[in-house]
Amino acid sequence: MQMVTTLELKERLEELRGQEICLQGWIRNHRRQKNIGFIDFYDGTCFKNPQVVYDNTIADYETVSTLHVGAAVTVVGTVVPSYKDPTTPEVQARLITIEGDSPEDYPLQPKRHSVEFLRKIAYLRPRTRLFQAVFRVRSVAAMAIHTYFQDRGYLYVHTPLITANDAEGAGNTFTVTTLPQGVKADPSEDFFGKATSLAVTGQLEGETFAMAFSRIYTFGPTFRAENSNTKTHASEYWMIEPEIAFCDIAKLMDIEEDFLKFIVRTVLEKCPDELEFLDKFSGGGLVEKLKALADAHFARVSHEEAITILRNAGEGRFEFEPKYGEDTAKEHEKYLTEEYFHGPVFIYDWPKDIKAFYMYQNEDGKTVAGVDLLVPGSGELMGGSQREHRIERLTRRMDELGISKEQMDWYVNLRRFGGCVHSGFGMGFERLIMYLTAVENIRDVIPYPRTPKECEF
Amino acid sequence: MQMVTTLELKERLEELRGQEICLQGWIRNHRRQKNIGFIDFYDGTCFKNPQVVYDNTIADYETVSTLHVGAAVTVVGTVVPSYKDPTTPEVQARLITIEGDSPEDYPLQPKRHSVEFLRKIAYLRPRTRLFQAVFRVRSVAAMAIHTYFQDRGYLYVHTPLITANDAEGAGNTFTVTTLPQGVKADPSEDFFGKATSLAVTGQLEGETFAMAFSRIYTFGPTFRAENSNTKTHASEYWMIEPEIAFCDIAKLMDIEEDFLKFIVRTVLEKCPDELEFLDKFSGGGLVEKLKALADAHFARVSHEEAITILRNAGEGRFEFEPKYGEDTAKEHEKYLTEEYFHGPVFIYDWPKDIKAFYMYQNEDGKTVAGVDLLVPGSGELMGGSQREHRIERLTRRMDELGISKEQMDWYVNLRRFGGCVHSGFGMGFERLIMYLTAVENIRDVIPYPRTPKECEF
Repeated sequence: MQMVTTLELKERLEELRGQEICLQGWIRNHRRQKNIGFIDFYDGTCFKNPQVVYDNTIADYETVSTLHVGAAVTVVGTVVPSYKDPTTPEVQARLITIEGDSPEDYPLQPKRHSVEFLRKIAYLRPRTRLFQAVFRVRSVAAMAIHTYFQDRGYLYVHTPLITANDAEGAGNTFTVTTLPQGVKADPSEDFFGKATSLAVTGQLEGETFAMAFSRIYTFGPTFRAENSNTKTHASEYWMIEPEIAFCDIAKLMDIEEDFLKFIVRTVLEKCPDELEFLDKFSGGGLVEKLKALADAHFARVSHEEAITILRNAGEGRFEFEPKYGEDTAKEHEKYLTEEYFHGPVFIYDWPKDIKAFYMYQNEDGKTVAGVDLLVPGSGELMGGSQREHRIERLTRRMDELGISKEQMDWYVNLRRFGGCVHSGFGMGFERLIMYLTAVENIRDVIPYPRTPKECEF
Repeated sequence: MQMVTTLELKERLEELRGQEICLQGWIRNHRRQKNIGFIDFYDGTCFKNPQVVYDNTIADYETVSTLHVGAAVTVVGTVVPSYKDPTTPEVQARLITIEGDSPEDYPLQPKRHSVEFLRKIAYLRPRTRLFQAVFRVRSVAAMAIHTYFQDRGYLYVHTPLITANDAEGAGNTFTVTTLPQGVKADPSEDFFGKATSLAVTGQLEGETFAMAFSRIYTFGPTFRAENSNTKTHASEYWMIEPEIAFCDIAKLMDIEEDFLKFIVRTVLEKCPDELEFLDKFSGGGLVEKLKALADAHFARVSHEEAITILRNAGEGRFEFEPKYGEDTAKEHEKYLTEEYFHGPVFIYDWPKDIKAFYMYQNEDGKTVAGVDLLVPGSGELMGGSQREHRIERLTRRMDELGISKEQMDWYVNLRRFGGCVHSGFGMGFERLIMYLTAVENIRDVIPYPRTPKECEF
C-alpha cells in the first residue's frame, strides 16, 4: 500500500489501477444509499477529485456513513475503473478512518454559495471549487513569472517595503511607526529616526540593481492607502517590476509581450481543469480568450495615433470625448482592444504631464517614452517606460515637479556613474490573476484582502 | 555579429571563439599600456567576467583610453583565446562605444572597500564582486525554494502583511496607520476601522490554506520592531513558512532536512564561481561546509537529551549552565553541532513554557512538539512544530496565556471543521543567505536593510 496525493493518483492512474492506496483529505460531498456510500474526496493537490465508494462490509460502517461534509479522513482502498468517467479516479474503500469530523452546521455545504458570503468566511473559502481553482492559478502564475525571469538570467531583488522616500507624492501611503498614537512626537524619535511609510513601488531601488546586474525583477507586496472601494483596488497587493539595462522602449515592448504570452501558455498547460471550471463559472469564453492572447499579434500605436483612432470612431461614440494630451478612459481602452484591434495593444509616447518624472523625454518636448499594455476584457495590465538616463533632463523635470533632488541623490547619481539607456515595467499581480481566472472582484483573488475598513483574519 | 550577455559568452565560449560579438556592460578596471588597453568588463549576468583588449587601431582610441572605472560601454569585438586562463573569455575589441562615462571620483575604485563603507553607498555596492556574489546567491536560493515546493505539489500562498491580529503579543510590531501623528483618534477612524500592524508571521493564515490544499508555503516579508542592533536582526526580512496537513513532527523533520539539502545542492551547482569567491573572502571553509551539509546525517535529539549531553560536557564548560526546562544558549548550540554531533541537529520536544501556544502538547504535560534545526557555524536555521489540532487543548492553552479566542475564532475553528494532524516550520531567508555566503552581518545580505534608526534609500 502506498500513500498518494490526489495529484499523484491522477498522474499515475493507469499504473495504480487495481492497487491498494492510502489517501488523506476531506469530504466535499457525501451521498448515502442503502448499504453503500459515495464520497467526493479532495486533498487540494489536484483539481480533479476522486470518488470514494464504500459499502456496509467496511469496519465502522455505521460511523463512516454518518460522516459530515468537511470531515478529514484517511481512506485505504483499491483504485477501480470509474463508472461515470474513465479519467475520474474511483477508489473502493476497505478502511475509512476519521481524522477530524465536521459539525452539521459546517458553513460550506455542497451548494453554490455567493462570493459575498464566502468573503465573510475567507478562512474556509479556499476549500471550495472556485477558490481551489483561483488560488492554484495564482500559485502556478507566480511560479511561471519566476521561471520566465530566472531562465533568462534576471536577478530576483527584494526591494524594501518600509521606506522614507516619497517619490510618488504623499497622501496615498500608510505611515509605519512605533510612536504611540495621539502623542505629539518628532519623527526623529520614531523607530527609524525619521518618518517612514509603506512602499508603493520598488522601481527606483530596482533601477540601482539593473545598473549592476543588467536584468533584474522584483516580485513583492506594495501598498496604497487609497480610500476607494472598487472591484479592482486593494490596499495591499503584489507587484512584479522588471528593470533592464541597455534596453529601449521598443525592446521593452518585445519583452512584455514575450513575458505575458509565456505566463498565459504556462497556465493553460498546467491548469486545464481549473481553467475549464473557471470558464464555465464565468459564463464562458475564458479559455478561448487566453488561447487567443497566447497567439496574438500585439498592436503598437502611439498615444496620438490611439486618440486619432478613437476620435474617428464616430460622433457620440463615447461618454468621454477622447482628447490629445489627455488620459484614455475605460471605454476607450475597451474600444481599442475589443473593437478596433481585436487583441492586445501597446500605447506608447504619452503626454508627459500625465506620466511620472522618471520617464524618458522624447524629442518633441511634449511626450515621454511611457507605454501601457491594454488587453481585451481587462484594460491596462502593464505599465512601463524607458527611463530618463540623461541627468540634465531628469533633474530639470524633478525641479519642475518639486521633487527633492537631495533626498533622491542616489537615484540621480545612477546617471552620473555609468548610466545607460534602460527600461522597465510594472504589473499588478492581482490584475493578472483576475485576467487569468475571469474573476471580477480583486477581493476574490487575494487570500485575505485588505481594503478600506476591511482587515479581517 | 550577435548581442550576448557575459553569461551566454561563458556558456557558449567554444562556439563563439573566433566570432564577432557585441557586449554591453560596465568597466570594473581599466589598465593602459603603450598602444594597448585592458578592460575588466562585467554586465552582472555572470560572475566570471571577460577581459576586453583594445589597441590604438580602434576608432576613438584617445577617448576610449581615458574611460573611467564605472563607465557603461558597448563593445564589439572578436572572441579570442585568453592568455591567462582558457576558461576566462577574452574579447579583442574592434569598436568601443561610450554609453555613459563615470567621473574620476567614482566611489568604487578597484581596491578592497570595507563592508561598512559599502553600506553607506548601498545603491552602488551591488556592482562590487562581493555583492555580485551575495545577491546572485540570494536570487538563486529564492528560486530553489520555489522550485522545491512547486515540484512537490505545494501551493504558494501570499499571506497578508497588514494585520489586526496580535497573536505573538504586542510591543514588537510596527503600527500601520493613516491617522495624522500626534492627534488623538479612535482606531475606528483609522483606514481599516481598527488598529493594524505589520505581520510578524503568516503561519496562522498559512494553516487555513493547508486545511484546504494539504501542502502550502509562504515566501514573503515579515516585520519586527525590535530595538536591537545586532549582526543578525533586521526589522524587515523575508520568511518561508510551509505548512503540511496530515504531517506529524517526525515527517516534518524529514521535509526540513530534504528541503535544506536541496537548496544547498542547487546553490553549489548553480553558483560555483560565486561560492569560490565567497569562500576566499570569508577566509576559507565555506564550500567544504556546504558540501558536508548536503551529505550530512541530521541528528535528532529531544531537548531533554540535548541538555543531558550538554551537562555531561564537563563542569565549567559553558558560561551559561544548561538546564532542563530552559532555552539553550548560542554556546550550547555551537557545542552540539560543531563538537558533539559534527553536523546539523534537530532538537525536538521543547518545554512548553518557552514555546508558542499553538504547538502540539505532548502526553508528558511538560513538553510540546516543537523542533529547532541547528547547523554548524550558524546555530538555529529553522523552527517548526506539530500544531495543536485538538480544540480543547488549544483553547485551554490560549486561556492560560490570555490569548483572545474571540479574535482568533477562525483559527480555533480550523479544529472544528475537519481538523487534522498538521505541522509546519519557518525559516528566515536572510539567515539562510548568511549561512550560504558566510557573510556575517545581516545588513550585507539585504539589498536595503532596515534596522533601528536606519532606513536609507
